[in-house]
Amino acid sequence: MRRLPERARYDRESVYAILDEGFVCHLGTCAGGEPRVLPTAYARVGDALYLHGAVGNVALAAAVQSEMVCVAVTLVDGLVLARSAFHHSINYRSVVVFGPAAEVIGQDEKNRALLAFVEHVVPGRTAATRPPNASEIRATRVIRVEIAEASAKVRAGGPKDDPEDLELDGIWAGELPFSWVPGAPVPDAALPGGMAVPGHIAGYRRPAGGRGRDN
Amino acid sequence: MRRLPERARYDRESVYAILDEGFVCHLGTCAGGEPRVLPTAYARVGDALYLHGAVGNVALAAAVQSEMVCVAVTLVDGLVLARSAFHHSINYRSVVVFGPAAEVIGQDEKNRALLAFVEHVVPGRTAATRPPNASEIRATRVIRVEIAEASAKVRAGGPKDDPEDLELDGIWAGELPFSWVPGAPVPDAALPGGMAVPGHIAGYRRPAGGRGRDN
Repeated sequence: MRRLPERARYDRESVYAILDEGFVCHLGTCAGGEPRVLPTAYARVGDALYLHGAVGNVALAAAVQSEMVCVAVTLVDGLVLARSAFHHSINYRSVVVFGPAAEVIGQDEKNRALLAFVEHVVPGRTAATRPPNASEIRATRVIRVEIAEASAKVRAGGPKDDPEDLELDGIWAGELPFSWVPGAPVPDAALPGGMAVPGHIAGYRRPAGGRGRDN
Repeated sequence: MRRLPERARYDRESVYAILDEGFVCHLGTCAGGEPRVLPTAYARVGDALYLHGAVGNVALAAAVQSEMVCVAVTLVDGLVLARSAFHHSINYRSVVVFGPAAEVIGQDEKNRALLAFVEHVVPGRTAATRPPNASEIRATRVIRVEIAEASAKVRAGGPKDDPEDLELDGIWAGELPFSWVPGAPVPDAALPGGMAVPGHIAGYRRPAGGRGRDN
């Protein structure tokens, strides 16, 4: 527990690197005093996060009626195996954002946000797809969450056992890192045969440059 | 959007399979009307989830003061690449739990919960570690969230493009599955040389049987 303060980071670079590597967030809202958590995709554009859903989505409606929402993004990097049960841990990088949420009404911003969702998850993809039409834009609710406050937490490295536990015999301790690895692309059944997988899919890495998750 | 209802599942088996495969949840609480989302580890035992943190943890304190909390667990399985930007999606399995939260006070239940956290993440691990001592148990706050209401959502498979988009030429469409793959275990620097990596680490798979995430 004494290590927790060391894990916190507040600089924009650390926070945005985590937001840019992830693409699924958990949106927290309060409705009638009861909490609600919605897993959903997001995109960061400047100092805001865009989230979207169907026009009837209850959690998004609650978000725009709230003064503040909370958005968390968590990347799990591995397991920390200590000699004591107590010092077992998880290596992770997470960001928690607090900010006001507003529905995006303007067609231009809404259209840009819809393309940003695709581009955030798969860089290079929007140039290779049919853009949203007017009825698709109407059918989607987009909300913008200002990144008013944000903090990152990062835990990395091996276990921090108590000194006396280092003498325990026969207990393996260390770290089990994870990688999140794209498998072989599965072509849609209706595709013409022999169509090449485009580079933005065949070479998909997270983050885009391929650093960090490649242990 | 018309597909969303098909994604929902409410049977216990579907819900618990997802809860048992994941080990990081997002806890939603309301404090003074403002939402808070905390990423944290959990374990399922029967019809309850256990969460824990330092005694000073603000979100856990808010949870036990709330009538209801919300806990979400999300597993990301892949990307869905459609011909239209609109029909891009993410394959995922998620569970949202609502229930009352209470602090676990009894030493026996607390101790069992602390071991359950380790065992939930790494089956077989508790037998190979030093169990919690009295001061470690005191230093930890454990809360139990009853799984009073729960629903699962699952999206799987390829894109569902509009029929007229199937004729668009030159747009690759399909699915990019992900696997979450353990890397090589990294032994702690203080371990005696030549110590074998135990089977519960060397053979680590999620879920334990290795089904489902192994695409």
